[in-house]
Amino acid sequence: MPTEIVAAEGGGSPCEARCANEAKINHECGLFGIWGHEEAAQLSYYGLHSLQHRGQDGAGMVVKNGDVLTRTKGPGLLTEVYNSKMLAEMKGTAAIAHVLYATGGMKSSTAIQPLLFHFEQSSSLAICHNGALVNSKSLRNKLEEYGSIFQTTCSSELLAHIIKRSRLVTFVDSLKRALSQIYGGFAFLLMTKNALYAARDPRGLRPLVLGKRGDAYVVASETCALDTVGATYIRDVAPGELIIIDDNGIKSEFYTSDKGMALCGMEFIYIARPDSNIEGVNVHTSRKNAGIVLAKESPTAGAEVVIASPDTGISAAIGYAEAAGIPYEIGLIKNRYIGRTFIAPSQNLRKRGVKMKHSVVRSIVEGKSVILVDDSIVRGTTMRHLVKLLKDTGAREVHLKIASPLYKYPCYYGIDTPSPKELVAHKRSAREISKLMDADSISFISESGLADAIGITHNNTHGLCMACFNGDYPTHLQDFAGIELK
Amino acid sequence: MPTEIVAAEGGGSPCEARCANEAKINHECGLFGIWGHEEAAQLSYYGLHSLQHRGQDGAGMVVKNGDVLTRTKGPGLLTEVYNSKMLAEMKGTAAIAHVLYATGGMKSSTAIQPLLFHFEQSSSLAICHNGALVNSKSLRNKLEEYGSIFQTTCSSELLAHIIKRSRLVTFVDSLKRALSQIYGGFAFLLMTKNALYAARDPRGLRPLVLGKRGDAYVVASETCALDTVGATYIRDVAPGELIIIDDNGIKSEFYTSDKGMALCGMEFIYIARPDSNIEGVNVHTSRKNAGIVLAKESPTAGAEVVIASPDTGISAAIGYAEAAGIPYEIGLIKNRYIGRTFIAPSQNLRKRGVKMKHSVVRSIVEGKSVILVDDSIVRGTTMRHLVKLLKDTGAREVHLKIASPLYKYPCYYGIDTPSPKELVAHKRSAREISKLMDADSISFISESGLADAIGITHNNTHGLCMACFNGDYPTHLQDFAGIELK
Amino acid sequence: MPTEIVAAEGGGSPCEARCANEAKINHECGLFGIWGHEEAAQLSYYGLHSLQHRGQDGAGMVVKNGDVLTRTKGPGLLTEVYNSKMLAEMKGTAAIAHVLYATGGMKSSTAIQPLLFHFEQSSSLAICHNGALVNSKSLRNKLEEYGSIFQTTCSSELLAHIIKRSRLVTFVDSLKRALSQIYGGFAFLLMTKNALYAARDPRGLRPLVLGKRGDAYVVASETCALDTVGATYIRDVAPGELIIIDDNGIKSEFYTSDKGMALCGMEFIYIARPDSNIEGVNVHTSRKNAGIVLAKESPTAGAEVVIASPDTGISAAIGYAEAAGIPYEIGLIKNRYIGRTFIAPSQNLRKRGVKMKHSVVRSIVEGKSVILVDDSIVRGTTMRHLVKLLKDTGAREVHLKIASPLYKYPCYYGIDTPSPKELVAHKRSAREISKLMDADSISFISESGLADAIGITHNNTHGLCMACFNGDYPTHLQDFAGIELK
Amino acid sequence: MPTEIVAAEGGGSPCEARCANEAKINHECGLFGIWGHEEAAQLSYYGLHSLQHRGQDGAGMVVKNGDVLTRTKGPGLLTEVYNSKMLAEMKGTAAIAHVLYATGGMKSSTAIQPLLFHFEQSSSLAICHNGALVNSKSLRNKLEEYGSIFQTTCSSELLAHIIKRSRLVTFVDSLKRALSQIYGGFAFLLMTKNALYAARDPRGLRPLVLGKRGDAYVVASETCALDTVGATYIRDVAPGELIIIDDNGIKSEFYTSDKGMALCGMEFIYIARPDSNIEGVNVHTSRKNAGIVLAKESPTAGAEVVIASPDTGISAAIGYAEAAGIPYEIGLIKNRYIGRTFIAPSQNLRKRGVKMKHSVVRSIVEGKSVILVDDSIVRGTTMRHLVKLLKDTGAREVHLKIASPLYKYPCYYGIDTPSPKELVAHKRSAREISKLMDADSISFISESGLADAIGITHNNTHGLCMACFNGDYPTHLQDFAGIELK
Repeated sequence: MPTEIVAAEGGGSPCEARCANEAKINHECGLFGIWGHEEAAQLSYYGLHSLQHRGQDGAGMVVKNGDVLTRTKGPGLLTEVYNSKMLAEMKGTAAIAHVLYATGGMKSSTAIQPLLFHFEQSSSLAICHNGALVNSKSLRNKLEEYGSIFQTTCSSELLAHIIKRSRLVTFVDSLKRALSQIYGGFAFLLMTKNALYAARDPRGLRPLVLGKRGDAYVVASETCALDTVGATYIRDVAPGELIIIDDNGIKSEFYTSDKGMALCGMEFIYIARPDSNIEGVNVHTSRKNAGIVLAKESPTAGAEVVIASPDTGISAAIGYAEAAGIPYEIGLIKNRYIGRTFIAPSQNLRKRGVKMKHSVVRSIVEGKSVILVDDSIVRGTTMRHLVKLLKDTGAREVHLKIASPLYKYPCYYGIDTPSPKELVAHKRSAREISKLMDADSISFISESGLADAIGITHNNTHGLCMACFNGDYPTHLQDFAGIELK
Repeated sequence: MPTEIVAAEGGGSPCEARCANEAKINHECGLFGIWGHEEAAQLSYYGLHSLQHRGQDGAGMVVKNGDVLTRTKGPGLLTEVYNSKMLAEMKGTAAIAHVLYATGGMKSSTAIQPLLFHFEQSSSLAICHNGALVNSKSLRNKLEEYGSIFQTTCSSELLAHIIKRSRLVTFVDSLKRALSQIYGGFAFLLMTKNALYAARDPRGLRPLVLGKRGDAYVVASETCALDTVGATYIRDVAPGELIIIDDNGIKSEFYTSDKGMALCGMEFIYIARPDSNIEGVNVHTSRKNAGIVLAKESPTAGAEVVIASPDTGISAAIGYAEAAGIPYEIGLIKNRYIGRTFIAPSQNLRKRGVKMKHSVVRSIVEGKSVILVDDSIVRGTTMRHLVKLLKDTGAREVHLKIASPLYKYPCYYGIDTPSPKELVAHKRSAREISKLMDADSISFISESGLADAIGITHNNTHGLCMACFNGDYPTHLQDFAGIELK
Repeated sequence: MPTEIVAAEGGGSPCEARCANEAKINHECGLFGIWGHEEAAQLSYYGLHSLQHRGQDGAGMVVKNGDVLTRTKGPGLLTEVYNSKMLAEMKGTAAIAHVLYATGGMKSSTAIQPLLFHFEQSSSLAICHNGALVNSKSLRNKLEEYGSIFQTTCSSELLAHIIKRSRLVTFVDSLKRALSQIYGGFAFLLMTKNALYAARDPRGLRPLVLGKRGDAYVVASETCALDTVGATYIRDVAPGELIIIDDNGIKSEFYTSDKGMALCGMEFIYIARPDSNIEGVNVHTSRKNAGIVLAKESPTAGAEVVIASPDTGISAAIGYAEAAGIPYEIGLIKNRYIGRTFIAPSQNLRKRGVKMKHSVVRSIVEGKSVILVDDSIVRGTTMRHLVKLLKDTGAREVHLKIASPLYKYPCYYGIDTPSPKELVAHKRSAREISKLMDADSISFISESGLADAIGITHNNTHGLCMACFNGDYPTHLQDFAGIELK
Repeated sequence: MPTEIVAAEGGGSPCEARCANEAKINHECGLFGIWGHEEAAQLSYYGLHSLQHRGQDGAGMVVKNGDVLTRTKGPGLLTEVYNSKMLAEMKGTAAIAHVLYATGGMKSSTAIQPLLFHFEQSSSLAICHNGALVNSKSLRNKLEEYGSIFQTTCSSELLAHIIKRSRLVTFVDSLKRALSQIYGGFAFLLMTKNALYAARDPRGLRPLVLGKRGDAYVVASETCALDTVGATYIRDVAPGELIIIDDNGIKSEFYTSDKGMALCGMEFIYIARPDSNIEGVNVHTSRKNAGIVLAKESPTAGAEVVIASPDTGISAAIGYAEAAGIPYEIGLIKNRYIGRTFIAPSQNLRKRGVKMKHSVVRSIVEGKSVILVDDSIVRGTTMRHLVKLLKDTGAREVHLKIASPLYKYPCYYGIDTPSPKELVAHKRSAREISKLMDADSISFISESGLADAIGITHNNTHGLCMACFNGDYPTHLQDFAGIELK
């Protein structure tokens, strides 16, 4: 496998030379697109900014100025890529934009989207996406046989090749045919000089919403991006839908009839921003509800205080405390200043008590029976560390309440999951996990409890995808067939 | 007045995005010192890191290796100043370290502490401090008359000059005499090849604590720094005390008999970290208590939800909700990715609805009577913006609960206060402020309520300093005599 | 046409100031390849470094470690892209490497070579090249019709597509067929896990040499790179030749029978380094000889001193002075510290006498009849400025001697020429140019004089290409047919 | 000894963290000052730029705008410190400016000049200087006894303290008295809101010139800075002279009667720019003359070619070739792209033939008897390397001609000399040096020959200082008394 290292660009002083290993499965990432506004680049900047939590490894946009598509991009946070001079120079009335979450420790500058293709015979094409395909490998093999050359493993490049091969009369026909050949969880934004295209996968695994700001149309991964740019929410893009936005307005088509909702549960549990709504459900509220459900499903007698694992467990902890009638307190502090350039303490110093990242508020937990709430446990490393911190500081008992079911199976739709062996819930019972965490007890919300908290029915082809909890994947898993999961 | 601009190399593109809270009123530096540990620089790094909230404009340390004192320093966050290679090269068994909060828009590299003086005839002297003096100007005038030259306006340089002039037989005698000549709120750390010295002002306005880690002694502005480096808390340094730490252990002396506690109230309200204890009182708990007191002093009939101004109002909001029996919710989200390089939206875009920094969770506040809790109001700009955001998103009523009294008077002891005219509570009643904020009501905690919440009696020479609320300053104000405050 | 701007991280403060000559006409990239050495990346770094004069806009290399090809690259000078840590981590026994001269004001990170293609079904392929093709557009059109997608306008990407389409049994057969379909002036280096391939165009327009260092083979654009890495020169690669280097040694093939030497004259005149030899001819010597020929062809009676336009005119000036028996002096000083971040003086300051870049040694030229020698005149801007400087400082007469003929026609083979309208010799006689320069006279070397100086016969298909002087292009100009040149 | 390491400012990505050891003796450096021009900062930038060869370790200036003095400074090259935005914001009508040459590998940010002192009771004072004092240590000892504190070892800080202590009625009287107490080779620029002061040492060891540009006065280390900013040369400042420039014009005073010219010979030989004149003598011409003298003093029979050690030996080589009637050729090429971030080849690679910095033009030297001319030999390392390079490339004989006498003694006046033991001419004869260099012969110009070439008589108190060649120092060496030199 070829790998790539890109010197931090422009850098005699590469802040951090980034080692780039191109991701094999794709990632959550965030998308923003706008058509019909004089300050398209500026609004894309603020839209992307509100989606920064979906990816911090790179940012880019393609802006349309008349017939010309111009790309800008760079590694790191949005604020590291763009400065005010650049932004001021990016004139245009439409744009598609992307923040990258790169899997693995390695990050490639060629993975930074959008991609921009330009053709001698026709106009340019910009593409970006989030999510992951399950038949990427099969499709690439076939295309290479026909003479295609790939420079990345990016699904956006793959889609461009399929479109190019489709050769139907209109671009929209070629695009629909291409979309019908890819399987997985995804959202795509495409732009030519003529139109902006937004597509969501046939199961609606990845979210995508549509809004309006004056005469301009906006598409984005989450509603918080609409709020940020002052746009009004119209509706979520439907599973299997292709929306076409041009100067005449908006058109909706479906590229497949095999469609049905199986929205990713982890978007509610962990990924999306609390102030976003997905399919009409507020994310913070769904989390708080999960805490309430947990308090009912798994009460702990004698518990004196409820604390959250900051920041992801806060909503559920508030719900739990409220429902259980136990005071909610700030018992753990997360240090905000730990960034990329923080120097982690040596193993030796850590052993000898040097702490990083989390601190305990001693007076809150000392001598008490503590409920610690978190959204999920994946590897379990942090949770184990937190339990130890609490006990070392004098907590009498630590009871863990997890606002999602046991995370047992890999996600093939864009959530960056470690290998099954690294999942703490892989082949372990709750009791075994509790012991491993050195906790006094652990409780996970039930699948039905979680579905109730969110308020969306769950089953494979309607409602929620909970494949990572139960292994029931809502699509065929072409490239991964025969992989033993259970 | 001469000013200084230092070419910030690479400053156009700070690698490290800051997720830090933006200060409402400003912090006043942090101190860390250690004597007798093989990894003095490493521990100072982690100690400073836990004090980063006290200053983000510069960081530095002087490390003692044998008889040699070596200084390192730089502008910006600790993680911007030090990299692992530098840190690894900083050998030594003792250190004093500093994080800078720089006042004014201009930030000078010469203001970054510690200062290091070296003499042809004797050993080197390192000094750093936090806080502010009230007779700085008078002393400098006198020293200049005698031929002294100043390169900065830094109090550490001033103290060095006074020590140098004292010419008593021992360094400790000269230092004590020098300390007895300065007035204000301060903590000083000094180091020579022979010892580390820690001094706290005669009113104990600025905090300073002492701890132990094995055979090593640690001094720091807050107990959270002791916890971070795995040190055990011994006690707070006393007002007017000078502690001398050398290879024979620790000695305590007093440099003045005119002493008495008047601890800065704002340390509890806003500055210190929630997991720190000051004079035995936990900061988070004092804030939560303030919320409880507020709920009792100022109930609001019909309020449906309690939300906090993130992050500073959270502890008090939890207390308020608990005492009032109203649900605590996350109604406002603060964007973590706004740092130095964020491009603020143009006035035009802001007017047209582009939001930055804060977002509202619509489903939490829409149609509701909302209690919004914050720790304090200084200029009032942010609060006014938040009320507008909430009302625009559909809040029916917004009632403000402020966990400190009206902030009316400048601080001369190290809190960077705007000029009286910029203080929203300057010559305004609570009712007028409420109107200005466009809120439905506003309540401030009473002075006695705050003292109860903290659990420390307050009066000028014993307990708490509340001069910023009531204008009763616990020291003479030499350089500021005759300034009209009320 | 889509363009791309890449956020140059840290670009506001390039650490490395450039002392580099500013190009008058521009260079066209440099190539270095090595096979069979344990320190392939290190040697490539030094090899590239000696070719830095051929391109300062980017650098990259692909290193082969076992079967894995790894790419590193970045914008700017080699020393800005690589640091010692990166270099130390680049293990491998073979490499191809490239320094980029980017045309246009816009510099794209995607233009930085080598390109690296990886295929699901076979091994990876790395490609880099210099020079330019004359049928690039035609080929791309055809390939796009067949479904190919291009992400750059880079000829290396084009060649990859043609190879991929060739589908002959062996890679070498596909490569030879692909090379036989492209026309222009070029050198290509390719590498797979099995071999390194080096190809030179059928007219030998661009130089490429072969050397040996112990058991390792080295290919490079110029012999100075062989000297730098301690390799011994074997021979120049022949026009139309494809050299294949693998663990069994070296093989030579020809991919076309239509071949014949037409070596680019500008390589001798301006581009190559003085210590390089091309086809056995030393570059400095050819330039000095040109000065000698000029002195014979165009003597100036009464001239008192010979000075050079630094640095490009120095070799010829020495030759002129020697042949004419007139003292050679340093009359013009070029400032070495003018780099990317130099702030050019305002128009206003320049008018009022603020000088940059060049200074005159007054005592050398004051009151004298001066011979000023330069290698070539393209736009004439610098020369006009130098004549003014000399006259302003008191030179009595300034006679220009140019060591190349009148530069009248664009180059299609890789020299970045301005548009004909910007060429000072376009539709202007020498007399008109002299007047425009405000010189007392101007002389250009004759074509035959230049050929004599170099010692290579010149005609279209044998010897030298002088198309930029006489418009006789040694290849068909497919994409440019019908463009009026004269 | 305290040392200091300053993180490259603004740097999460310190390009190179600079280790700073404060210099004990001072350095050549470059000075520029201007009074009475609306664009004082801009002109200072260009003036400093032309003096960049005198120091590349830091740059700074203090600009006077009305009564306010503002300082800017930073490490590295001028172009690294200033960007166009900064420069545009630096309004003012007078300025003093400095480029720093820092001795040793260690560089301190506190050493970057000018220093700026500000006093409560009077105006601010800016000072910068070049050169070195011989009684610095003695003076500091005395001042410390009186209570002064030093933050640097910089002579500018020392002078400020002496002025401050002088307490005479006028500033000029205090300044003159202070200047009369320091001994050494120096030039000082000082500025207050009222005037600019320029002083040269009593022996005129360091150069300083005066010019005029319209109504504005300019002072600078070399005349090239006058030329660059379009100023007209008036005269050299005289030894022992203090020039005072204010809005009323210029005044000249002498601060000592013990004065007499002993101009530093190395300024002509190596330091100054070829286009500068010192005391009316052109630097390039003095170097070329030295070559001519050398050719007469030390002819070599049978030599076939004269080459220079680039760039410092070029002027002398041209003179030698002209006088000896032997062709001057470019035989050695110096790589222009070796900067701070260049990765030096490992010892292993160097041994195995990897070259850096210099390349040989083989056809020029192969089989020939070569004359290699350089300006001076200090350590001899480079020269030895060059001889080896030439011989390895096939030179039959290499004869060294050095345009200065044997460099045997340390300089106490500002030239950064290695310790005597590192001087190749320390206790070695020319014959021994030739052997050490592995040359076929070596010749040094005689002292009288050099004086003739420059055209200034040399003896201790009149003419040239040649102390580094003959050990006859033109001043008392207070701090260095008793040090054995010979």
